[in-house]
Amino acid sequence: MRLRHKAWAADYIKEHTDYVLPNPMALKGKWQDVFDQAGPIHIELGMGKGQFIVEAAKQNPDINYIGIEQQTSVIVSALEKQVDLDLPNLKFLNENGQDLTHFFDQGEVDRIYLTFSDPWPKNRHEKRRLTYKSFLAIYDQVLDESGSLHFKTDNRGLFEYSLVSFSHYGMVLDQVYLDLHQSDFVGNIMTEYEEKFSAKGQPIYRVHAHFPKE
Amino acid sequence: MRLRHKAWAADYIKEHTDYVLPNPMALKGKWQDVFDQAGPIHIELGMGKGQFIVEAAKQNPDINYIGIEQQTSVIVSALEKQVDLDLPNLKFLNENGQDLTHFFDQGEVDRIYLTFSDPWPKNRHEKRRLTYKSFLAIYDQVLDESGSLHFKTDNRGLFEYSLVSFSHYGMVLDQVYLDLHQSDFVGNIMTEYEEKFSAKGQPIYRVHAHFPKE
Repeated sequence: MRLRHKAWAADYIKEHTDYVLPNPMALKGKWQDVFDQAGPIHIELGMGKGQFIVEAAKQNPDINYIGIEQQTSVIVSALEKQVDLDLPNLKFLNENGQDLTHFFDQGEVDRIYLTFSDPWPKNRHEKRRLTYKSFLAIYDQVLDESGSLHFKTDNRGLFEYSLVSFSHYGMVLDQVYLDLHQSDFVGNIMTEYEEKFSAKGQPIYRVHAHFPKE
Repeated sequence: MRLRHKAWAADYIKEHTDYVLPNPMALKGKWQDVFDQAGPIHIELGMGKGQFIVEAAKQNPDINYIGIEQQTSVIVSALEKQVDLDLPNLKFLNENGQDLTHFFDQGEVDRIYLTFSDPWPKNRHEKRRLTYKSFLAIYDQVLDESGSLHFKTDNRGLFEYSLVSFSHYGMVLDQVYLDLHQSDFVGNIMTEYEEKFSAKGQPIYRVHAHFPKE
């Protein structure tokens, strides 16, 4: 059954190459031509079912969004939303985040979002965390000098780890929210997951950080 | 009444110049001679009634502690504890933290503790916060290159502010605890204040950070 579902998802993605772009390596350095309108490029790594990025694209038509999700069976849920909405400023990549530098030129990205990333709590899985230093080196390459990383999670251990990881890499923290829903932050877009955890009284953590450029 | 209390405190401090050292400027660069035994120097700024530093000095006889508190009517409570205990590795200064560079040579201090510092929540009082950049510049001067700052608070706003302030100054975060009492941290010394707030279910925040030296 699982195989059949995946097969259906793969076909559905292939039928919508206008939304899930099949050859991002060919677009490296040319992303401004991909969208109807030029604008800052914000990407989300591990967007899951796309709840955050679809809503962000709806709310901010002047920003061009690219959602990246490796799992075919998950990205298909984001695609279904976009098939309904047909937002001109939203594209998806069914790719691995580790290949980001193959898809984007140096400084081509203005913001990277990580929202509720997999915490990979075991020490031996540290390298899989999207805030591990090897990922930061990738973000550092593709982000513009005025660009920033916005990271949000309900996982305390991952957030503690990430602040230290950012700092050790040489990133600068610009904003830290240790209980986002009790803060003065304006314009937070909540996913169902965030609503569920927040309703339990668990704090949501958020940080904005940048890479200092020479 | 307040004046009489203060007058009593000032006299009591003057009677105990072996514990509350009256002329710290004369000791600059010579702190290893002040104590019976040579050892790393850990200082606490704004130690209040000294609950933390007195307990730390009891538990760690190989470390020399200096507690600094500007308010005469407060430091006297720490002094009363030390008059009872006569710990050889504990001294006090009834001084202003801003004068630290007059009391300590470059790199003479191995660790600085800030515990439950006044949050000064109003923006116009930012400069009074002990994690404001002008204070960080002072800590940077007196801390040894392997030295570090250990900061603990229950105040979310102050902790958020401090992480950003540290990062913008160029400090590196080494450990972050967003709920200290739920963490694997070993050897935490609790003050009455900390016990009270923690019992209410409020998280205690802690960070260890250092200044990278050339």
